[in-house]
Amino acid sequence: MFKAKVKPEVLKELVEVVSILVDEAKFTVKKGELQIKAVDPAHVAMVELRVDKKAFEEYKADESELGVNLLKFRDVLKLTNPGDVIAMEHNEEKNQLVLKVGNITRKMALVDTTGLSDPKVPNLNLPVKVVIKAEELRKVIKASESVSDHIALETSPEEFKITSEGDNDSADLVMSKHMLNELDCKEGARSLFPLDYFSNMVKAISTSETVTMLMGNDYPVKMEFSIAGGNGSSTYLLAPRIEND
Amino acid sequence: MFKAKVKPEVLKELVEVVSILVDEAKFTVKKGELQIKAVDPAHVAMVELRVDKKAFEEYKADESELGVNLLKFRDVLKLTNPGDVIAMEHNEEKNQLVLKVGNITRKMALVDTTGLSDPKVPNLNLPVKVVIKAEELRKVIKASESVSDHIALETSPEEFKITSEGDNDSADLVMSKHMLNELDCKEGARSLFPLDYFSNMVKAISTSETVTMLMGNDYPVKMEFSIAGGNGSSTYLLAPRIEND
Amino acid sequence: MFKAKVKPEVLKELVEVVSILVDEAKFTVKKGELQIKAVDPAHVAMVELRVDKKAFEEYKADESELGVNLLKFRDVLKLTNPGDVIAMEHNEEKNQLVLKVGNITRKMALVDTTGLSDPKVPNLNLPVKVVIKAEELRKVIKASESVSDHIALETSPEEFKITSEGDNDSADLVMSKHMLNELDCKEGARSLFPLDYFSNMVKAISTSETVTMLMGNDYPVKMEFSIAGGNGSSTYLLAPRIEND
Repeated sequence: MFKAKVKPEVLKELVEVVSILVDEAKFTVKKGELQIKAVDPAHVAMVELRVDKKAFEEYKADESELGVNLLKFRDVLKLTNPGDVIAMEHNEEKNQLVLKVGNITRKMALVDTTGLSDPKVPNLNLPVKVVIKAEELRKVIKASESVSDHIALETSPEEFKITSEGDNDSADLVMSKHMLNELDCKEGARSLFPLDYFSNMVKAISTSETVTMLMGNDYPVKMEFSIAGGNGSSTYLLAPRIEND
Repeated sequence: MFKAKVKPEVLKELVEVVSILVDEAKFTVKKGELQIKAVDPAHVAMVELRVDKKAFEEYKADESELGVNLLKFRDVLKLTNPGDVIAMEHNEEKNQLVLKVGNITRKMALVDTTGLSDPKVPNLNLPVKVVIKAEELRKVIKASESVSDHIALETSPEEFKITSEGDNDSADLVMSKHMLNELDCKEGARSLFPLDYFSNMVKAISTSETVTMLMGNDYPVKMEFSIAGGNGSSTYLLAPRIEND
Repeated sequence: MFKAKVKPEVLKELVEVVSILVDEAKFTVKKGELQIKAVDPAHVAMVELRVDKKAFEEYKADESELGVNLLKFRDVLKLTNPGDVIAMEHNEEKNQLVLKVGNITRKMALVDTTGLSDPKVPNLNLPVKVVIKAEELRKVIKASESVSDHIALETSPEEFKITSEGDNDSADLVMSKHMLNELDCKEGARSLFPLDYFSNMVKAISTSETVTMLMGNDYPVKMEFSIAGGNGSSTYLLAPRIEND
């Protein structure tokens, strides 16, 4: 059983965060929260997300799973206006999600969840921690897009650097410790990442002011940020690209 | 003879209403009003429109006919800014419409009217009447577009329903009598319509707050709405799509 | 040596003015000003531009030449927000332009200047002078675009006319002497120009309120306008199209 009312912007943000990696996802509905975990088809990146029932206007659920076509769901959410409240209900018999906005009822067929991945989040020891304004990340990916197709994250005890190097051009962001919200780094670390994934992740972080980045040397990066006005959180995990020197 | 001054938004609305069905139309200019009637090339829909001379800043006309290429006319109207007044004059000798906005003069060749249809509006007995907010229609067509390519209008003495049914999905608007401006229905009626026509019609209703819908069972629908700030009115007539049950 | 700080809008305007004619241009940096001259590949039009050091927040330069890829430069300028200040510095050793905005550093490879044209501005005797609001020019090119691919500039001692004639349609702007900021014309003159060039020039004039047009009979037109908030000026020269009568 799943029955809830929610402001459309909460669902829009959630769909935005997950749909950069997959077109269909399993929504795991629990008594107290909604969870989504997904890995992209190329197995380069993963997303993990939870939204507390407090983010909803109303929320009533037993444990259940909904297979959602995110592209179709996004189209339905486009029908809403600011100030609307969406009522959602799972019709288990027909495996439909029934959405109501104003006088409109929209029934959306759900996807079979057995085909949807249920990724195991790996246990990683990431020794470096940086807390940075999301706005700074957005600026550096914009500057990097015309330069190269990868990006390097580099930390020392004193500063955090994001660098993109092309054949003749380069773009970089350099932030010393006092310009960051937090920098916790014992010894230097550097990893290279595909720009397209990194860029999509940064662009999907729409409401969180800061991002917590956990890193290592030639190791994945973990990006944690809040969603749903602080009533939820999300984590991206992105595999490094190994440099051939 | 035809000579007039008018705010561009009046002409823009008129062109929008007619151009969803035809690219060229005959403007029948009368002493007291401007009339347009047109039927679409597939003979599925018809529009009938009149704008009173009160909608114009100045209006002087004998009875005459102008063959207007609506696409070209729309391009000329795009040159205007809010607050502009367009002066129009029919140059009968050259069969041109001469338009002046500010210091710009734009002469537009007219189309031969003999090739343009002059549809007869059929005399229909449509027993059901619904008066509904245009905004509600806009919402339901938006919700229906991803679901199916047709739409059903259904009335009972108690409620009015617009339904779109796809293979697995559906969208509908249900409005009970008290939520409508008017519902006059003795016995149930239902007709099916092509969504693209219905949708274009609803989208072209831009300034009228309400739409009066006249319907029957497996019968055309007539949609009446005001234009030109109440100084004109327009009617769409749309043929039903016969269901194969 | 070249080192400067400047508001992005100054550079954006400059790039807009030059890039309608060429993709790469030589920036000649002098002690007191920045100069650009360029001719388009078809040798139909020329631009000449200077921006005084007063237009910059900071400006320090010896005489030098920078070969700039305007398309790439424009992309970098898109990264800026209103209120930003760009710091620029020429790294002569690597022949790079180093741009800094906030915490971002963007290094842009420069182009070899030997391949870039250094046009000689011809000495022309253009007897007619018209000073007109840029807004009027913008309106008439918009009206002309659907009519023809050329435009005639015509002057008499009493009025200035811009005319576009198609097979059946026409668009024109007629301004009598008192409607212009200035009209200095002893005897009538008329020249025909390609609309695409003329249109791109007019659209690139974004901040100057007026344009000074110098003309003759079947002669080029020279358009002078201010840039950089009055701290710079620019001139377009456009060759006429000879009419076959």
